[in-house]
Amino acid sequence: MSTKDKPNRLQARLPRGFADRSPADMAETQRLIEDIRKVYELYGFEPLETPAIEYSDALGKFLPDQDRPNEGVFSFKDDDDQWLSLRYDLTAPLARFVAENFDRLPKPYRSYRFGWVFRNEKPGPGRFRQFMQFDADTVGAPSVAADAEICMMAAHTLETLGVPQGSYVVKVNNRKVLEGLRHALGGASPLGDVQWLAVLRSIDKLDRLGPDEVALLLTQGRTDESGDVTKGAGLGVEQADTILQFLGFRALDQGSQRPRYVADRPARRDNAAMIDRLNAVIKGPTGQQGIDELRTITRLTQAAGYGPDRVAIDPSVVRGLEYYTGPVYEADLTFDIKDEAGRLVRFGSVAGGGRYDGLVERFRGEAVPATGFSIGVSRLMAALTHLGRRAATPDQGLVVVLVMDRELIADYQRLANRLREAGIRAEVYLGSAGMKAQMRYADRRGASCVIIQGSDERAKGEVQIKDLIQGAKEAAAIASNQEWRATRPAQFAAPEGELVAKVRGVLEGQGRRSVAPERA
Amino acid sequence: MSTKDKPNRLQARLPRGFADRSPADMAETQRLIEDIRKVYELYGFEPLETPAIEYSDALGKFLPDQDRPNEGVFSFKDDDDQWLSLRYDLTAPLARFVAENFDRLPKPYRSYRFGWVFRNEKPGPGRFRQFMQFDADTVGAPSVAADAEICMMAAHTLETLGVPQGSYVVKVNNRKVLEGLRHALGGASPLGDVQWLAVLRSIDKLDRLGPDEVALLLTQGRTDESGDVTKGAGLGVEQADTILQFLGFRALDQGSQRPRYVADRPARRDNAAMIDRLNAVIKGPTGQQGIDELRTITRLTQAAGYGPDRVAIDPSVVRGLEYYTGPVYEADLTFDIKDEAGRLVRFGSVAGGGRYDGLVERFRGEAVPATGFSIGVSRLMAALTHLGRRAATPDQGLVVVLVMDRELIADYQRLANRLREAGIRAEVYLGSAGMKAQMRYADRRGASCVIIQGSDERAKGEVQIKDLIQGAKEAAAIASNQEWRATRPAQFAAPEGELVAKVRGVLEGQGRRSVAPERA
Repeated sequence: MSTKDKPNRLQARLPRGFADRSPADMAETQRLIEDIRKVYELYGFEPLETPAIEYSDALGKFLPDQDRPNEGVFSFKDDDDQWLSLRYDLTAPLARFVAENFDRLPKPYRSYRFGWVFRNEKPGPGRFRQFMQFDADTVGAPSVAADAEICMMAAHTLETLGVPQGSYVVKVNNRKVLEGLRHALGGASPLGDVQWLAVLRSIDKLDRLGPDEVALLLTQGRTDESGDVTKGAGLGVEQADTILQFLGFRALDQGSQRPRYVADRPARRDNAAMIDRLNAVIKGPTGQQGIDELRTITRLTQAAGYGPDRVAIDPSVVRGLEYYTGPVYEADLTFDIKDEAGRLVRFGSVAGGGRYDGLVERFRGEAVPATGFSIGVSRLMAALTHLGRRAATPDQGLVVVLVMDRELIADYQRLANRLREAGIRAEVYLGSAGMKAQMRYADRRGASCVIIQGSDERAKGEVQIKDLIQGAKEAAAIASNQEWRATRPAQFAAPEGELVAKVRGVLEGQGRRSVAPERA
Repeated sequence: MSTKDKPNRLQARLPRGFADRSPADMAETQRLIEDIRKVYELYGFEPLETPAIEYSDALGKFLPDQDRPNEGVFSFKDDDDQWLSLRYDLTAPLARFVAENFDRLPKPYRSYRFGWVFRNEKPGPGRFRQFMQFDADTVGAPSVAADAEICMMAAHTLETLGVPQGSYVVKVNNRKVLEGLRHALGGASPLGDVQWLAVLRSIDKLDRLGPDEVALLLTQGRTDESGDVTKGAGLGVEQADTILQFLGFRALDQGSQRPRYVADRPARRDNAAMIDRLNAVIKGPTGQQGIDELRTITRLTQAAGYGPDRVAIDPSVVRGLEYYTGPVYEADLTFDIKDEAGRLVRFGSVAGGGRYDGLVERFRGEAVPATGFSIGVSRLMAALTHLGRRAATPDQGLVVVLVMDRELIADYQRLANRLREAGIRAEVYLGSAGMKAQMRYADRRGASCVIIQGSDERAKGEVQIKDLIQGAKEAAAIASNQEWRATRPAQFAAPEGELVAKVRGVLEGQGRRSVAPERA
């Protein structure tokens, strides 16, 4: 009976939205993390790691509004009937940690953390339920100098990782300025929370949909290409005009029920002019305070040499998480890439954050000002791969000792150990297959060479070394150029005593990463 | 009103059995992982990472028998009503991965993995519900040469990490040999599964309780010092004698209802003699096969230079996980340490594993032989710290730029940036406190020095550099030896242009780890 027909067999599969990671992916992630870590260390941040599981109430629910409300978090009951959750970001656990260790921590407390977070959301292409974040936060710093520093550090990080100036921008806005817009819209009766949330979500879509579609979302609603209807925020056309003006557009046919908008802002980025424009729209003291904060951030970043090409005021930045209270910022990659269907798409946001002065307060009962940002590690890695800025480290090479005679396996193990003691990756073939399958195995492992010692070689105290890379080249060359063949022999005999030296020669000929003896 | 009195405030705390990790702990873990990884790479193993969440049925339930049966795993329902679980080890996910990717993987597949695993168990001192494992497995290798290799690699790893020969031993047993014991005990009617499990759990306690107490556990049961009663396995005294004989003891007063046992085995470890002794006790073909496997393992390890002082046959090794089918092994540290109460305790097991030929079969319907072992990373790290074998890396040092005048913060930021560009960790104080609190902050951060630039220094184009380590020494010396003071000034002025050079001098004077410019 074929094993495939066996009934009731357990299916080997992962739940949707989860993925295994390959050696190459892991190595790239590790390098990326080390590079980011070095920058954060330079700025005086120190590492922290919190567990994956927390009390649900400690994490709170601050996720962006979901299609499935009250979800988004993986939760389960503990033995004592208290609810536990998997962390959905690295900010809420930091707030818990700071509150729990408040007195012993230096303030401001500069912390960086990276690790897996979990979202119980609907997975999709490139959208996982377990993904890695890398966060940096300054807790206990009321001054927007802390926000300015985080924005500059974000820019510094991207440049260190190989994203050139001009290929990214750190966009800054302020929730207080958005409150000023809300105030301006509402006049005497301010907008309710539900309607305001719909407005923010519409603004958030400016980059993707453009001003005309955003205007529709703000008013009567919108039907997309696939026929899906999004309900509008129910604002009047004049209110929508105000918002579009705030975002840097003016109506071509003002007064129409469905006006079309054109950009109406300085051609080159000019942070001061942008802030003046926002100031002209917003109303109320909170908004004014937000404007002042943006001015300070601009002054500090400019003074440190981070001009508007690197850190730019952008009123369309909203950020989804509910806990932000002041400046919000996001790092966008500004180059286009081709998607799988060959269409040009903008890479967009790879990191974001903001000020959350109320998150620690939930525990402490007193405000603890804090600001920080989070890098989406997988997203950033995909972008860097696309930029081609991160050449892969050359492989160290691998040697496979073939098993010609199963009785001699202890001897083969000894050959492998001799290579390992010299710092060379080596293994004895441990399967039960014959010679041909062993060669296939070595090829599949991407091995540099195999060591062959049958009874003849053993009697002579020799080994055969077969260079698999060279061998493959020769096999390809035989058809086209027989003469080429003699230049470097793909297989040769060597005395056992010269095993390490000869293998080293093969590895070097292949341009492998050199290794030092590792044995203590 | 004091904030402490505020009612209904959320409590900042972690669930029991979970812990935050400090920078020092994280750095040590990272180094340990890198060191282990290097050894595994040398043996041709390659990395894999699987997600924290799997389908519950894919993981199965193979945990050691719990006090709370049917628990041990954190589980929750997905939206489609299927059960998900957090991984409780790194072996069950590997089996799922191999079954899912069987055709594209080279066989044998050599895999290493590290990461957090989760157990929904009762936490206790040193016993966490989230802990880190580091595993290596060879899948698709039926030969016990694979088991022998893993045992030798475990020894190699411990020695590379600084555990000297003689301070550890890799103990090897075989589930098949234990089956031979079961057969010998049962005679015509073999022991039932429940009774046999009780026997295995009793054997497992030999190291901790000694032979006399194990004999009680095997027969009538036992009352410990605190008065807790453990039910016995219900064997007769003769059966218990057989087991104790298997374990290397003989009864002083054979035939008594409660005999006392003394060691009856070679004084020096002698694997061949030990196997002969086991062979004399066990019965049946399965047991015999196990004996043959142990003989092969001994032959291979001995031939590779891993004598019985490093890899030793030990019949008391059982290993708790239910999926083992052949050789089982564990790495024990053999030195004693003092516990918190000053009592001598043996460190014991830091890693363990075995052969599990049936785990992939659950998915594939055909046997896929596999063997592997798992290091308990935190436990091993505690042991290494105790051995004092892992000197901490010297700190890189940190410079804090004090804020004398809040209007000048952009200038202070500029000073910090200049240091960072030279690869020196630097930060501007971002809190709102005065001079004295800023100095306290720098002390708490363990900073190397502070940079002070008031209006006077600024006018002169100078900075003041205060060496905090030197300063602390001087403060201590003032009382005892005023003369000592003049040798190296703890605070001095320097032209702004010499900031980097002077700070470098301070860091070098403190023996800090030198740094190269990091900026790309």
